[in-house]
Amino acid sequence: MNVHDVPTPALVVDADALEHNLAAMAAARPGPSLRPHVKAHKCTRLAAEQAARGHAAFTCATPREALGMARAGLGEDLLIANEVLDAGRLEALVGVVEAGEARITVAVDSEATVAAAAAAGLLDVLIDVDVGLPRCGSAPDAAGALADLARSRGLNVRGVMGYEGHLMMVADRERQRDDVANAMDKLIAAHDAVGGEIVSAGGTGTYDLHDRVTEVQAGSYALMDTQYATLGLPFRAALFVDATVISVRPDWAVCDAGLKAFGMDHGNPALLGGTVWYCSDEHTTFAPDDGSAVAPGDRVRLQPAHVDPTVAYHERMHLVRGDEVVDVWEVDLRGW
Amino acid sequence: MNVHDVPTPALVVDADALEHNLAAMAAARPGPSLRPHVKAHKCTRLAAEQAARGHAAFTCATPREALGMARAGLGEDLLIANEVLDAGRLEALVGVVEAGEARITVAVDSEATVAAAAAAGLLDVLIDVDVGLPRCGSAPDAAGALADLARSRGLNVRGVMGYEGHLMMVADRERQRDDVANAMDKLIAAHDAVGGEIVSAGGTGTYDLHDRVTEVQAGSYALMDTQYATLGLPFRAALFVDATVISVRPDWAVCDAGLKAFGMDHGNPALLGGTVWYCSDEHTTFAPDDGSAVAPGDRVRLQPAHVDPTVAYHERMHLVRGDEVVDVWEVDLRGW
Repeated sequence: MNVHDVPTPALVVDADALEHNLAAMAAARPGPSLRPHVKAHKCTRLAAEQAARGHAAFTCATPREALGMARAGLGEDLLIANEVLDAGRLEALVGVVEAGEARITVAVDSEATVAAAAAAGLLDVLIDVDVGLPRCGSAPDAAGALADLARSRGLNVRGVMGYEGHLMMVADRERQRDDVANAMDKLIAAHDAVGGEIVSAGGTGTYDLHDRVTEVQAGSYALMDTQYATLGLPFRAALFVDATVISVRPDWAVCDAGLKAFGMDHGNPALLGGTVWYCSDEHTTFAPDDGSAVAPGDRVRLQPAHVDPTVAYHERMHLVRGDEVVDVWEVDLRGW
Repeated sequence: MNVHDVPTPALVVDADALEHNLAAMAAARPGPSLRPHVKAHKCTRLAAEQAARGHAAFTCATPREALGMARAGLGEDLLIANEVLDAGRLEALVGVVEAGEARITVAVDSEATVAAAAAAGLLDVLIDVDVGLPRCGSAPDAAGALADLARSRGLNVRGVMGYEGHLMMVADRERQRDDVANAMDKLIAAHDAVGGEIVSAGGTGTYDLHDRVTEVQAGSYALMDTQYATLGLPFRAALFVDATVISVRPDWAVCDAGLKAFGMDHGNPALLGGTVWYCSDEHTTFAPDDGSAVAPGDRVRLQPAHVDPTVAYHERMHLVRGDEVVDVWEVDLRGW
């Protein structure tokens, strides 16, 4: 199939760029030193490609992602790097573990999350440590006591995680290196108190700045977006949304991909061959670089500003080489 | 079921507020003087409630919305207020029309869109007229010739539409009234040249400023959002996302609804009982108004800034009266 025959808006993945990104990361952080985060792509077919390159352990943001990965045969070592208090969902995870279909470890950062994991009968937890991002995570100096509590409740504490998300977009690399080192000082100190074999941290923006952790949780590197592109990392733009031009006026044109096709928290998508004026629900209005070159029915390609909430809107991604659609992958880990 | 037992993040609709909004609009624009836009809620069950209040004709943004409305028995008079060039989708619409399951009218604004509609065998079109919003629509003085072209190709031209979307958020009501009148001057002039029984325009922000159109296309009024709330319209906040508090620190707390649960183009959601700091993919970090009152496992309620792209992320909406879930409606018109 030609990509021009795919109904639009269509999520499109440049297969060669994806291949480059997967290979570049596998070279930089081989095997278990990378625990790819599936929240960025929500696609078990893409996860299988990461597993084929040596990364058998995965990071998930939600129970549904973990259950989907287990069903897809990718459940060797799944970490839900997030706090879960929903008893029904925890029981579903325990069911998958007890059936031997997956090993699932859940992050805990409080007495409440430890109690929920223990009540559900979960085996494995990781102590989530606040390393500077105001989000989840126990205070670093409380991590040891939390691990003791977890063990007293029968849980296996596999180690610590601490996501330095506030440092992903630091443009000055030396400052970023220092800031990450300071954040990891907190995580290592917590690990000294907690014990366990896992020290998990990092993301695409800091994947190469970690020498004291056992694994990095990067996800965006596989597909990338315009925001991560500003960092000059060795990963290529692989994710796009193709749209059809449906209206043309002398000063602008309109294509059929809009707010429901793009995560907008990092701003407008970029349009190849034009300047985006604004997005509305089902449209993007843009000025073509060469106005006379655009006609109704033409295809245009846009690059999202933020990969994760963009992918979450789409049912499938189309892998392309040039104009040829070489595969179609369901975005099968969407929703909650 | 108690709403506190619904897994989160959960799209929640205040059933009384929805009822109020539907009744208020039906009083202001009864029967065919309103053509509710389904793109805001993407839910045939909600559309059925609008039909029950006298609005038998609907506006859609996409062919999938129209096909879903037809399948739900709500196809008496569907307008796709958007340009469609996809031959396969136009043929699917024609199939539904020829099967007697729906009447479907598609907007056209160019020779290309007229040609596509005619080639597919569509019966009914409306001339889309640019009344000032830089998006779709023919130049007003070209509308008559386009209608002639459409009729020469065998199409039934039912009239004109012109969406003054650039005027929805004008805060000064008198200025808004004047601006809408000027925009409608263009639409009426185009209608004089086009003919037909339909003059369609408007939205929730201007629903009561139209006395020269045959119908208004409002959609957001049913559920509302924080942006429309700034206009002081007689519609209540009916749409929320419920989340579970999963982590609490002295200065902030975190709940489990984030960028994949909210359309973010109009900014952060508002949190009832707290101040939102920021959203990440699966989290919102916030400062509770009363920090000591929030514990892990508590529920919080957020109001989206933009209804349409928020609903498009969710599989279903939960209608609530107080804490009781009185119905669950699938968001069955999602995707493309």
